[in-house]
Amino acid sequence: MNTSFKIKYSPLFVGTKKSELHFFEGSPSLDFLFSSKQKKIFITDTNVFALSSLKNFFSKFTLIKQEQIEKTSYQIFEYNNFPLIVIPAGEEFKTIQSVLSIVKTALEFSLTRKDTFCAIGGGVITDIAAFAASIYKRGASFEAVPTTLLAMVDASIGGKTGCDFDKYKNITGTFFPAKQLFFFPTLIESLSEKEFISGLAEVIKTAMLFDKNLFEYLKTHKQEILSRQSESLFKMIYVCAKAKAKIVQKDLSEKNIRMLLNLGHTFGHALESNAGFGKLTHGECVAWGISRAINLSKNLGLCSDEYFNEVQGVLKSFGYETSNVHPAFKDSDKILNLMKNDKKNHSSNIKVILQKGICKNLITEIDDEKILEVIK
Amino acid sequence: MNTSFKIKYSPLFVGTKKSELHFFEGSPSLDFLFSSKQKKIFITDTNVFALSSLKNFFSKFTLIKQEQIEKTSYQIFEYNNFPLIVIPAGEEFKTIQSVLSIVKTALEFSLTRKDTFCAIGGGVITDIAAFAASIYKRGASFEAVPTTLLAMVDASIGGKTGCDFDKYKNITGTFFPAKQLFFFPTLIESLSEKEFISGLAEVIKTAMLFDKNLFEYLKTHKQEILSRQSESLFKMIYVCAKAKAKIVQKDLSEKNIRMLLNLGHTFGHALESNAGFGKLTHGECVAWGISRAINLSKNLGLCSDEYFNEVQGVLKSFGYETSNVHPAFKDSDKILNLMKNDKKNHSSNIKVILQKGICKNLITEIDDEKILEVIK
Repeated sequence: MNTSFKIKYSPLFVGTKKSELHFFEGSPSLDFLFSSKQKKIFITDTNVFALSSLKNFFSKFTLIKQEQIEKTSYQIFEYNNFPLIVIPAGEEFKTIQSVLSIVKTALEFSLTRKDTFCAIGGGVITDIAAFAASIYKRGASFEAVPTTLLAMVDASIGGKTGCDFDKYKNITGTFFPAKQLFFFPTLIESLSEKEFISGLAEVIKTAMLFDKNLFEYLKTHKQEILSRQSESLFKMIYVCAKAKAKIVQKDLSEKNIRMLLNLGHTFGHALESNAGFGKLTHGECVAWGISRAINLSKNLGLCSDEYFNEVQGVLKSFGYETSNVHPAFKDSDKILNLMKNDKKNHSSNIKVILQKGICKNLITEIDDEKILEVIK
Repeated sequence: MNTSFKIKYSPLFVGTKKSELHFFEGSPSLDFLFSSKQKKIFITDTNVFALSSLKNFFSKFTLIKQEQIEKTSYQIFEYNNFPLIVIPAGEEFKTIQSVLSIVKTALEFSLTRKDTFCAIGGGVITDIAAFAASIYKRGASFEAVPTTLLAMVDASIGGKTGCDFDKYKNITGTFFPAKQLFFFPTLIESLSEKEFISGLAEVIKTAMLFDKNLFEYLKTHKQEILSRQSESLFKMIYVCAKAKAKIVQKDLSEKNIRMLLNLGHTFGHALESNAGFGKLTHGECVAWGISRAINLSKNLGLCSDEYFNEVQGVLKSFGYETSNVHPAFKDSDKILNLMKNDKKNHSSNIKVILQKGICKNLITEIDDEKILEVIK
C-alpha cells in the first residue's frame, strides 16, 4: 500500500538573529577584534593588507606559509593563535577556490561552527568570507570591517554572500548576515579614485530609491563629496547603511521589496560579465545600468523627461558613462542573454526595477525589444 | 560621534516549509517527475543511470555532450527540455567540482531560483545535488528519489547537504530540506551487497536510538532482511524514515536532539577519511563507530556489559567489523585528530553520542585518553 507523511519545519534564523552596525569617527583601530572569548579567522586581500591606515593592526601578524588552490595562491599569517588569510585582490579572485582557501585555513586552525570568520576588506572579501562562513560545517559566525565605500554602503549589509562562477556574477551563494559590522568612514580617504567612484554609484542608487534629501545633497555637494570630506563621507555611509538596513530587515531573502535594491543591477551585472570580470568596476556598471533603467522608464512613459535628465546629469557629474552603448560593450544580444540569467528572473521575461520619479519605485517584467531599445 | 544600530531579522524557512515523503510499493515508475509546471534538472550518477529498474525512465533521455570540471568529467542528457546530468559514481566524486558541474548545467539550461533540482541516487548524489540547489542563485528548490538504503533511511531526510573537501567529509554544506521525497523500497532489491550492508548500519543505529521493536526485529529476522524481502525492506525504510522525520522536525539545524543521530559517526567519519574516501563504505565505518561508542559507554559504566554484547552481536551478525582496531585503520592518533575536526565539536574535547541502554541516549564530551582506550 502506498503511503505518505509530512515533515513540518520551524523557521530558522540564518546565521544570526540580528546584525549590529557600529560607526566610528577618526582613524581605525581594530585591536578590539582580538576577542579572547572565541576562535576567529581574519580574511583580507593583498590591497587591504598593504593599507597604511591598517598597518598597526596587520603588522602584528607573522607570515606562516604560502598555499595554493589551483591558480589562486594565498598567504597565511598568525598572531596570538588568530589566523589571517590574505587572498589576491580583485574581482577575478571572487571564486570558489578563494572560498575554499578560507575553509581550508579555518580547518587547519581547528575552527568549530561556534567560531567566527572576520572579513576585513571590500565587497569581494566580505562576500566570499561570508559565503565561506555560511557553508563551513554548515554555518559558522560572520563579522566584517568593510573597507571600501561600496562595501560600507551596500555589499556588507544584508547577508548576501557568494562568488562568481564561469562568466556569471554571484551565481552561487547564500543568505547569511553578519553578527557585527564595524564602519570606519575615514578608511575611504585612502581609497583609490576608481574604487571611490565605484562605491558612489550605490550611494546615488540608494538616494534615488529612498532618500530625496541625499539625492539633493549629491546634486549640490559634488566638491565636498569628491574631496572626501570626513563629514560628507560619514553622512553618505550612515544614511545609505540605514536605508539598506530598513529594507533587509523587512525582506532579508529578497522575496519582494529588497528587489528594489537591484535598480541598475540587471543591466549592470550583464555589462560587468560581458566586459569580463575586473575590467570595469561594479559601480561603473551599476551607474550605466541606472541610466539604462531610467531611460527605459522614460521610454515606457513612467517617468518624466526632466527626471531622466536629472539622473543622467548626476551620473555624468561624477564621471559615469550614461550612453546607450557602453564603450566596453561588445554585443547587445549577448548582454540580453546574460540579463535573462539574472537571479531575479523567474520567467523568460527580464525583471527590472524602474522608477516613476525619485523614490517612486516599481518592479516589472519587460519584453526583449524594449530592453534592446535602450542598449543599442 | 560614534554611533550604532541593529538590524533584527525574522526567521526564515530554509528551502521549504515542509517535506512531503511518499512511499511506493511495487516497481518504480518515475514519469510523474516530468511536471509541466516548472523547469527541473535531474541529477544522477553512472551507477544509478545503468540500473535496469530505472531503464524505462533514463532511456528517454538523449546524450547532448560530455563536459569536464578539473578531473571530473560528466555527461549531459536531455528529454523534452529536461536536462539530466550524470556524474561519476562514488564518494571520491563528492566534491565541490561535482557541485559546480550541477550549477553550470542548471545555468546552461537557464533554470531560475523558482525551479527544481531533482536528485535520483544514493547519499552522495542527494547530498551534492541538494547543496547545489541551496547555493544556486542563493537557493532553488530540491526534491529527491533516494535509490539506496542509506539514502532512504538517512541521507535524503532532514536537509543536510554538502560535499567533502580535502580529507574532511561533508565539511562544507548547508541545511536545505527537500520539498518532496519519493521512496521506492523495491529499488533496494537490485542494490549491491556492499551498498545494502552499508545502509543497514543506519537502520541498526536508528533502532538503537529510537525503536526497541525494530532492534528486536533486526535480531530475530536476519534472514528476511538479508534476502531483502519486500515487506522487510518496506518496514525498515518506513520506520527509519518516520523516526528520523520526528527528530528533524523538532531540530532541523542540529542544535540539540538531532545530534543523537550521530551515534557512531564521530568515530565513523574519522575512520572513513583516515582510510581514504571510497575505500570503506559509510555504513561499515558507522557500524564500527557504533561498536566503539557502545564500548566507550561500557567503559564509562554507562551501559551494561549485556547491552554492549547485544550490540556487538547484532553488528557482527550483519558482518561488520567491531574490534578496537579496524583493519583499514592506520594511525589512532590521526583518527583522534580527525575526530576533533568533527562539525559537532565546539571545544577541544570530542563530543560523542553514548547510550545507557537501548533508546537511552546521551550527548557528552570525552577526554582524549578515554577515546584512545577504545580505538587502540
